[in-house]
Amino acid sequence: MTTDTSVTPPRDAGTTGTAGSISLVGIGPGHTDHMTARARTAIAEADVVVGYVTYIKLVADLLDGKEVVRKGMTEELDRAVHALEAARAGKKVALISSGDAGVYGMAGPTYEVLFQAGWTPEDDVAVEIVPGASAINACAALVGAPLTHDFCSISLSDLLTPWPVIARRLDAAAAADFVVALYNPKSGRRTRQIVEAQRLFLRHRRADTPVAIVKSAYRRRQHIVHTTLDQMAEQDIGMLSTVLIGNSSTFLRAGLMVTPRGYANKYDVDQGFETREGEKAGRSLSSGLLGWIEGLRAEHAAGAGLAELASRHRLPADYIEQVLAAPDEHAPAEAGTEETEA
Amino acid sequence: MTTDTSVTPPRDAGTTGTAGSISLVGIGPGHTDHMTARARTAIAEADVVVGYVTYIKLVADLLDGKEVVRKGMTEELDRAVHALEAARAGKKVALISSGDAGVYGMAGPTYEVLFQAGWTPEDDVAVEIVPGASAINACAALVGAPLTHDFCSISLSDLLTPWPVIARRLDAAAAADFVVALYNPKSGRRTRQIVEAQRLFLRHRRADTPVAIVKSAYRRRQHIVHTTLDQMAEQDIGMLSTVLIGNSSTFLRAGLMVTPRGYANKYDVDQGFETREGEKAGRSLSSGLLGWIEGLRAEHAAGAGLAELASRHRLPADYIEQVLAAPDEHAPAEAGTEETEA
Repeated sequence: MTTDTSVTPPRDAGTTGTAGSISLVGIGPGHTDHMTARARTAIAEADVVVGYVTYIKLVADLLDGKEVVRKGMTEELDRAVHALEAARAGKKVALISSGDAGVYGMAGPTYEVLFQAGWTPEDDVAVEIVPGASAINACAALVGAPLTHDFCSISLSDLLTPWPVIARRLDAAAAADFVVALYNPKSGRRTRQIVEAQRLFLRHRRADTPVAIVKSAYRRRQHIVHTTLDQMAEQDIGMLSTVLIGNSSTFLRAGLMVTPRGYANKYDVDQGFETREGEKAGRSLSSGLLGWIEGLRAEHAAGAGLAELASRHRLPADYIEQVLAAPDEHAPAEAGTEETEA
Repeated sequence: MTTDTSVTPPRDAGTTGTAGSISLVGIGPGHTDHMTARARTAIAEADVVVGYVTYIKLVADLLDGKEVVRKGMTEELDRAVHALEAARAGKKVALISSGDAGVYGMAGPTYEVLFQAGWTPEDDVAVEIVPGASAINACAALVGAPLTHDFCSISLSDLLTPWPVIARRLDAAAAADFVVALYNPKSGRRTRQIVEAQRLFLRHRRADTPVAIVKSAYRRRQHIVHTTLDQMAEQDIGMLSTVLIGNSSTFLRAGLMVTPRGYANKYDVDQGFETREGEKAGRSLSSGLLGWIEGLRAEHAAGAGLAELASRHRLPADYIEQVLAAPDEHAPAEAGTEETEA
């Protein structure tokens, strides 16, 4: 990390013609097959390509005749400053991130540096973000369908985030039964974070919860390990690994990690997917929002107090109170009418 | 939704030559520029393309000469069954999802149907998942850099998920300060879910928390609204919208929604990004895991009890207890040595 971050002030809005641009390019997992057309074009059109050395190697065959700036792992701000300086000098710059540029990638640090330098979207330097498949998407595709229900992405790196913030998120995600992807799970020095993550998860999840550890997805040294929550911290995990922890319904079958979408709540999966009694295809579950509120009102009318309802539904008492107090604008009867989502 | 899900049993492992394949293709946000090379090839190589009508339209110019099967919004299982039948008949099938096939897409339902039909990875029918940029990545790229810190993805659809499960996740994500993307936020009939989501978030987040609502990202009718948490439920939101709710640090500047990565914890952003006193570039924060444990031990030694420490650090008392009881294998002194992540 350099601390020399002097940047030239923004040009007068009137100056035109020679200004460059910055493309924040998410290259996907690393294999060109999984790069988008726009990502490829943005790199092809660039005069200067800036990125972490490992990512630069992944796009080596697109770099002929370009100025290439390789930076170290922790030099994100430096990369952004370099990109801005080159763009101010009239260059087209591609600032590459692996996965998606927005997910722990260069989009955030770059905007922070740009704003600090007085840049606005009206500036001569145009900025574009090119989305890509993030590590979570690539790793999930290789292990089955683990993300089929709600999920969280949490970085275990404490280089910029205090541990209590990370720990609270791990605890909340584990308690609320999210599928969780851990980014930056471990490094040469940061070895205990994954142990603490495991500790926090085991307070809420079964020891045999499926866990997949994917290293270098879609790259030459791709390596996948299927394990369980109680074994995960002992596995070979590094900076190129992503750890996927299943929710309470996730299962491993025939070597595939799958989180059910919830069809079993509505259909009898073992009986030709017939609709269960009281449920209707294309409509909210009987335990969906309106059906749930109807049931809540009935329980309350039958004498259940707020504290009891809160404990029974594992939701905050003051939320239950607000729901019961809210006007019933959307009559529960409507829950039975045709869903018009299509 | 059809309930006719009869499928032929898997062939003998010995049968070869005529078996087809299923590619679960994530086409990205919808514009071919943001489709991966592999997604394009998988569709080009397919004999049969199966998908929701809206997504089929997005890849219309790739469908010449192919059998195209358009299905309704709620017919995911039907699409999977159709794909399996065609693959068993020797066809190459591309089952398309918008965004990433694994995120609320066809990967999950397809594996559920395949397993039900006795399919295993050793079957003649080969299955491949082609990852793509999910809606969260595409929408984030258009509004700035909102996902630069830990985030959750939560679907507000209660067609397959009971409301209390969704509500608990909203509550947990709001409390633990995750950036949150809401998928399926609202439909013609499901209008109150977004109101309830807002209610749950306002218990933890400031009313002026930045919210972006992105409709039809990278498609012809793309529409972006920047609003705040207390105004979000009144906005125009539909089935093609994704709602991005910032965390407590997210800000809107020059029309861009940005979540800081945390550089301000380590560097003096207003003073040329100089390293703050007590912090070192490339190393864990002084409030990182090992530094935090060191502080915790000191507080405990000075007389602070578990309950007090739990309340002070907003973490469960039994977790604090476990941390204090754990052997100090990784001496805090190591936190000061060079980070070797690169």
